[in-house]
Amino acid sequence: MIRTDQTICAPATSGGGAIAIIRTSGAQSISICEKIFNPSDIKINLSDQKGYTIVYGDIRSGDEIIDDVLVSIFRAPHSYTGEDSIEISCHASKYIQQRILELLILNGALPAQPGEFTQRAFLNGKMDLSQAEAVADLIAAESAKAHKLAINQIRGTFSDEISILRADLLHFASLIELELDFGEEDVEFADRIKLKEIVSKVLNITKELTSSFSLGNAVKNGVPVVIMGKTNTGKSTLLNRLLNEEKAIVSEIPGTTRDFIEDTVVIDGILYRFIDTAGLRETEDIIENLGIKRTHEKIDQASVILLVADINEGLQALSETLELLRKIISGDARRLIILVNKTDNDINSNRDEIEANLNTKMSESLIFISARTGYGINNLRVKLGEITGTDINLTESVVVTNIRHYEALTKVSESLERVNQGLENKIPEDLIAIDVRQAIHYLGEITGEITTDEILGNIFKNFCIGK
Amino acid sequence: MIRTDQTICAPATSGGGAIAIIRTSGAQSISICEKIFNPSDIKINLSDQKGYTIVYGDIRSGDEIIDDVLVSIFRAPHSYTGEDSIEISCHASKYIQQRILELLILNGALPAQPGEFTQRAFLNGKMDLSQAEAVADLIAAESAKAHKLAINQIRGTFSDEISILRADLLHFASLIELELDFGEEDVEFADRIKLKEIVSKVLNITKELTSSFSLGNAVKNGVPVVIMGKTNTGKSTLLNRLLNEEKAIVSEIPGTTRDFIEDTVVIDGILYRFIDTAGLRETEDIIENLGIKRTHEKIDQASVILLVADINEGLQALSETLELLRKIISGDARRLIILVNKTDNDINSNRDEIEANLNTKMSESLIFISARTGYGINNLRVKLGEITGTDINLTESVVVTNIRHYEALTKVSESLERVNQGLENKIPEDLIAIDVRQAIHYLGEITGEITTDEILGNIFKNFCIGK
Repeated sequence: MIRTDQTICAPATSGGGAIAIIRTSGAQSISICEKIFNPSDIKINLSDQKGYTIVYGDIRSGDEIIDDVLVSIFRAPHSYTGEDSIEISCHASKYIQQRILELLILNGALPAQPGEFTQRAFLNGKMDLSQAEAVADLIAAESAKAHKLAINQIRGTFSDEISILRADLLHFASLIELELDFGEEDVEFADRIKLKEIVSKVLNITKELTSSFSLGNAVKNGVPVVIMGKTNTGKSTLLNRLLNEEKAIVSEIPGTTRDFIEDTVVIDGILYRFIDTAGLRETEDIIENLGIKRTHEKIDQASVILLVADINEGLQALSETLELLRKIISGDARRLIILVNKTDNDINSNRDEIEANLNTKMSESLIFISARTGYGINNLRVKLGEITGTDINLTESVVVTNIRHYEALTKVSESLERVNQGLENKIPEDLIAIDVRQAIHYLGEITGEITTDEILGNIFKNFCIGK
Repeated sequence: MIRTDQTICAPATSGGGAIAIIRTSGAQSISICEKIFNPSDIKINLSDQKGYTIVYGDIRSGDEIIDDVLVSIFRAPHSYTGEDSIEISCHASKYIQQRILELLILNGALPAQPGEFTQRAFLNGKMDLSQAEAVADLIAAESAKAHKLAINQIRGTFSDEISILRADLLHFASLIELELDFGEEDVEFADRIKLKEIVSKVLNITKELTSSFSLGNAVKNGVPVVIMGKTNTGKSTLLNRLLNEEKAIVSEIPGTTRDFIEDTVVIDGILYRFIDTAGLRETEDIIENLGIKRTHEKIDQASVILLVADINEGLQALSETLELLRKIISGDARRLIILVNKTDNDINSNRDEIEANLNTKMSESLIFISARTGYGINNLRVKLGEITGTDINLTESVVVTNIRHYEALTKVSESLERVNQGLENKIPEDLIAIDVRQAIHYLGEITGEITTDEILGNIFKNFCIGK
């Protein structure tokens, strides 16, 4: 996997457009490029060029001209990867890109593996591991808040937090080691209280971080929302209303199975994934669908459940549907928003009756809307932000968005809980030291101070080629 | 349409990948970029930077960091457009690109229209019109030969040819004018023969160019091939065989109607469009389909007709099918290739009988193949090259690929035919001069020495945005 003695190449752009970029990284970048590139100014010698300069010319295969290109030169260590690097800016034709890549490979470059450029940046100390992971998150970010979290992580705010925790624990470890050194004298140092303080502090922050993961994950991957309701209650109209109001990035997520459809909508900078099943979509009969196992699964996975009802059906029908739904909603009832749709005006006898008599639990929300006119949609928007907790200011807080970090932090917590108990129960220092070192180890895995080929492989295989 | 006093901006890449490029062109390029870009080296001032250099830093909206980017600087006239120009290389997230474009526009840039960068390159004399048109062809080129034609055109081989013709005609015009000046003396210059020579030469080359258009068009847009044959003769297998053997760029051409399907295959550097109709594809019964009007239309448009037959059906069935097909094939019988499929070995009694007795016209080709094993496919490949005339060396010849050029050259021919007749019939020189000037005018339209807003509008509206 790791082969930093080689020069790698890959397209850095994909799709159409006017321009495409092919990049290389490695010690032979410039010498390989020289073999296929002819500067239009014959006085220019590529290998004499400084970093951060551009040369115009053409790529040739023998006498055949492949394309007129710009070549950007980056010299180690002042490049993305920290190695010598070349970016060839050519016309965005697939044919041309294939030919240029072939020529680079013929002249000694290797095709890059997914994420290999960023992996080299990590291995060459240009960024730590959590920053490298954030590069992929940044490229994938579809909403303002996901973008903000990724930028913060690239900029090192998360790494800084982890470093502080690590420094605290190293300080703790050194105090423990000191006790061990004087162990024969059977001294218990006066600052055992201080030890407890350090562990509590680190443990609290660690727990805050792990508990931020459900928010971070929702921001990064989208908040899952299940829409339910009988036929003709206006579920599609509601979705379209949300889509149009927000002028959102709308996409059918590829790779989903045919009978499982997702629409994504950005609302107030947060990506929501609206989940429906083909069964629900076609028959749209909640009673018919409640028995279906996959409907249960979708409800279990959802952060928010929207029950859409038609105001004209009245209190009785809504109460019955609600009762049915409650039987299968497990966990937090806060997740449920009851949307009484087709409320085209404030004066509606059914509305009064529902408001006065519907047996809603305190934690459930009841909102009257009109998907057609937009009435009440703002209340829904505010409520969504409240439920998902995404109305907090992400600029100020450090949020965990990565499951690998979450898992490492969970292990840090477990180790520190044992340290706490050990201090409480006057366990020998050498045993406490083992758990402290374990906590330090897991913090190190996050930023990559401690790493294995397996960890690196898992991280970078999910990158695109060329990054 | 033309607004070269403004600075324009657009994404130059599209789709995913790791990197995206946003480019600007215009006198305010650098000053606009300065307002949103912070060099990481605070000593660097963007407006002091030389052309062909790169600066690292970040794009900000107020305090909010949008992305870490590289900014490439190009200074007039040494840029693609001939104007000051900036390329911002950012992470390939749609969100980031939208934000950067918004910031550029907020600070005074205009969103570029399709082809506006290349149009500016033309208006600023960086390339002539036929070269500008070849830029779009180059980006679209899917095959080696289409690429070669576009590169040649960008490099000016076509423009050079047109310039020579134009120079010859200007010389001719000056001789005519000379005669006109001495008109009163009723002198007929001795070099009237020379005049005829010039016109013949230019006319011959013009006609060669116009007749190269069918080849050029086929190379650029793909050679249309209709596949016909009864059910289960192996038409799909044949297409798959060609696709796989060539490891070709395969695509469903978007925008085609549902009952009209095209597959494209590159064979020996030439793009072929294999045309089928849903009717043919579903029922695949040639006899049933021969009566259908749209089948006739497809056959009329095709450069090549492949009739696929099953060897096991024998001579009689093949003869009957061939007779039916001949009735509707209009034009050159050279276009027809009879493919006797499922010829899995050389020894086959049906083969001998067909070879000995099938009433093929000399101009038709009879090839025994096995789509399943690949037997005979190379013969088919060679024959396709022969029929389409695409086996010629495109490096040496100047080929017309653009219908606008074809139409202009046709008008040049018409004007020169009139000149020829005029010289023959001793028409007064001032009348001949009119036709010569018209021919010169149409040659000038090709390279853009003579142009109108309408011509420019038609050319550049088909470009992608950002080029």
